[in-house]
Amino acid sequence: MTTVNVQLLLTGNELMVGDIVDSNSSMIAQELKHLGLNIARKVAVADEISDLVDELKDMTQRANILIVNGGLGPTIDDLTAQALAQLLGVELTQHPLALAHITRWCEKRGFKLNQPNLKQTFLPSGCDIIANKYGSAVGFKMMVNNCHVYCTPGVPSELSTMLIEEIIPDIKSYVPNSLHYHVNRFQVFGIGESSLQKMLDEQCPDWPNDVELGFRASMPLLEVKLTTKSNLAAEQKAKWINRLHQLLGDHIVAEIDNKPLPFARHLQNLLLEKNAKITTAESCTGGMIASQITQIPGSSVVFEAGYVTYANHIKQQVLGVQSSTLNECGAVSKKTVIEMANGALANSAADYVIATSGIAGPDGGTDEKPVGTVWLAWGCVGNIKTVCLALPGNRYYFQHYVTAIGFDLIRRMLINSSEIPHYIKERAKS
Amino acid sequence: MTTVNVQLLLTGNELMVGDIVDSNSSMIAQELKHLGLNIARKVAVADEISDLVDELKDMTQRANILIVNGGLGPTIDDLTAQALAQLLGVELTQHPLALAHITRWCEKRGFKLNQPNLKQTFLPSGCDIIANKYGSAVGFKMMVNNCHVYCTPGVPSELSTMLIEEIIPDIKSYVPNSLHYHVNRFQVFGIGESSLQKMLDEQCPDWPNDVELGFRASMPLLEVKLTTKSNLAAEQKAKWINRLHQLLGDHIVAEIDNKPLPFARHLQNLLLEKNAKITTAESCTGGMIASQITQIPGSSVVFEAGYVTYANHIKQQVLGVQSSTLNECGAVSKKTVIEMANGALANSAADYVIATSGIAGPDGGTDEKPVGTVWLAWGCVGNIKTVCLALPGNRYYFQHYVTAIGFDLIRRMLINSSEIPHYIKERAKS
Repeated sequence: MTTVNVQLLLTGNELMVGDIVDSNSSMIAQELKHLGLNIARKVAVADEISDLVDELKDMTQRANILIVNGGLGPTIDDLTAQALAQLLGVELTQHPLALAHITRWCEKRGFKLNQPNLKQTFLPSGCDIIANKYGSAVGFKMMVNNCHVYCTPGVPSELSTMLIEEIIPDIKSYVPNSLHYHVNRFQVFGIGESSLQKMLDEQCPDWPNDVELGFRASMPLLEVKLTTKSNLAAEQKAKWINRLHQLLGDHIVAEIDNKPLPFARHLQNLLLEKNAKITTAESCTGGMIASQITQIPGSSVVFEAGYVTYANHIKQQVLGVQSSTLNECGAVSKKTVIEMANGALANSAADYVIATSGIAGPDGGTDEKPVGTVWLAWGCVGNIKTVCLALPGNRYYFQHYVTAIGFDLIRRMLINSSEIPHYIKERAKS
Repeated sequence: MTTVNVQLLLTGNELMVGDIVDSNSSMIAQELKHLGLNIARKVAVADEISDLVDELKDMTQRANILIVNGGLGPTIDDLTAQALAQLLGVELTQHPLALAHITRWCEKRGFKLNQPNLKQTFLPSGCDIIANKYGSAVGFKMMVNNCHVYCTPGVPSELSTMLIEEIIPDIKSYVPNSLHYHVNRFQVFGIGESSLQKMLDEQCPDWPNDVELGFRASMPLLEVKLTTKSNLAAEQKAKWINRLHQLLGDHIVAEIDNKPLPFARHLQNLLLEKNAKITTAESCTGGMIASQITQIPGSSVVFEAGYVTYANHIKQQVLGVQSSTLNECGAVSKKTVIEMANGALANSAADYVIATSGIAGPDGGTDEKPVGTVWLAWGCVGNIKTVCLALPGNRYYFQHYVTAIGFDLIRRMLINSSEIPHYIKERAKS
């Protein structure tokens, strides 16, 4: 095939009634791009058997590759397998690998295998199974006319793994190499997409068209992707990767292979390298820093204690913040976060600390300290640094951003960075 | 028209390559729902004139109402007007109202009217303008065969206003009232979708077709929607809502109007009603319980202190857990969570407490206490209850589920529920 027509069929009432926003088709498009493929056409329909059959018939005639997303679940409105069987005039038969999968899946969770689960093992005769690492529903693939049809689950985390580990490699095996792209991915913190675009335009006007830079905003780490045709000379590619490093400096948190990693994972790696532990003294982040650290497997090696001191009397009692400090400077002050940080270090055997106190809103702001004001303290015994920032956005954004800034400040200390980050330049209050 | 077929055509390369996630179709669906209309089918294509003409031809034959979104901009790849004119065999002519709009739009912003802007005033002969309150591109509508076609801008804020103020009222004028329907939404915790489906099949085989039950899985609260035609008799509707209550009992956390609310919000409401405060003593949840509580605005009224005691020596030092308890029973034990709970209550002025200690995995499990084992303690001074559960799934699922179970156990105590929840029946370890 010289040009490959890829189409996408999305099924599910929840997509049609507006209950959920479809992020799956964006994910699929991003993955296909590595192979140099674009989605030519997407169709979404509700869970109606005759509509599904009609659409499948039409799309398999137009496309070389059809990815069907959704409709693999245990309930009666999950109709993908039935629709494909009907289109092909074959039976739904119990697939032994699907049965083995669901049996193991239920066993692992202590579930009794029930009738709705068993429904998921009945698939069109002649299809091949696509493994589902996390969910109960296996995917499956089959040829319909000359079209490769891949049926995938609607749950994004299940789809993601299935795509990366099974479907993309399968498509790669029959799509010509000349189309392939290589993507270098960077996780960047502290510069927004539009600031970055402006820096690029101003500082790198000679940026070539065949080295495509893409951005994918995600909270809190921005993903920057450098896409090159696989046949671009290695030194050319190295040159532009180098230019990107010069441009972004220590705002690059990591270069990653595939999936974006949580910020706390990168921090854990740095702490492990130094054999160091961290503790937290949180007011406005309310436990989010501790929670994000402990969401990473293995966190007990780097984290032993966290203090959520939301009320002033708890700051005094638990962390030894002086009542004179609170009375004279207030809870959102340099002196308070320093005392919080020192208190947390003294109470635990940790080497590093992050302390936060700020006004997350929507209420609690004053003229002097409006919503979005935050004091952070970070560092280690004898070396506590502080900064006060004025952050934009709502409570959700504020708490997540303060958490990420805490991680970034410790990260910069751990890598001995002397650079002043963009967010301090832009947002520091004197 | 007795049934109204509504379809949606989305255009734009950025939609196809995965750079943006389409939130417009969800917005359109939500607005149409008020009129009792569902989107039967959505198609998305790139900015290719022949593809657009083909798709418009096909969709105007199938649909009574077609909403076209995108492709109204000033650049050459904005092709909606051209494609419709081509399909109808009419000219693109300058629409005087469109010219007046863009002239005023430019004047207001001090822009000079340029060629790309003028392109936006050339529309298919015979169309009617739809006002755009914010953007440069007017929308337009026309009949194609017997299909009402509405062409709308891709910018979400412009689309939103145009929909609410112009398009929905226009559609309302010719869609029969009898189609309107009503949705009752419930947030449910502790029963999965397939268990619920099974309960329904077994206990309510007489469930009628015109009272549609839909599920939307979301962690941790399942959304259950009961959809009825507006003309269903009130007592009929009340009867089936009552049946749903009987079936689900206290697993119903709340009935909600529109958007699902976080579990912590419901808990905050219950605590506020009792003028009560809560504290947390977290090991395996690592601060997630405190973080979810404090993500809700106003949480400082119900929450003052949280203790993340990840290491054993911190449990002793901060919460006063006895070393003999840790030595004899281990950190994941009934005695430890009771002492953690009592320690947190003693250290804070809180009325209620949630304490957790478990094995989140992937490492740290033993034969006796495998990954997924958790002890929870909850309650108030003099009334601490405990349970040990064996939970399935990975670390992410475990931490989120334990957090939600903590909320649910306190919620059930606050509403004086005597029911044993499904998850305890299924997952309690003796």
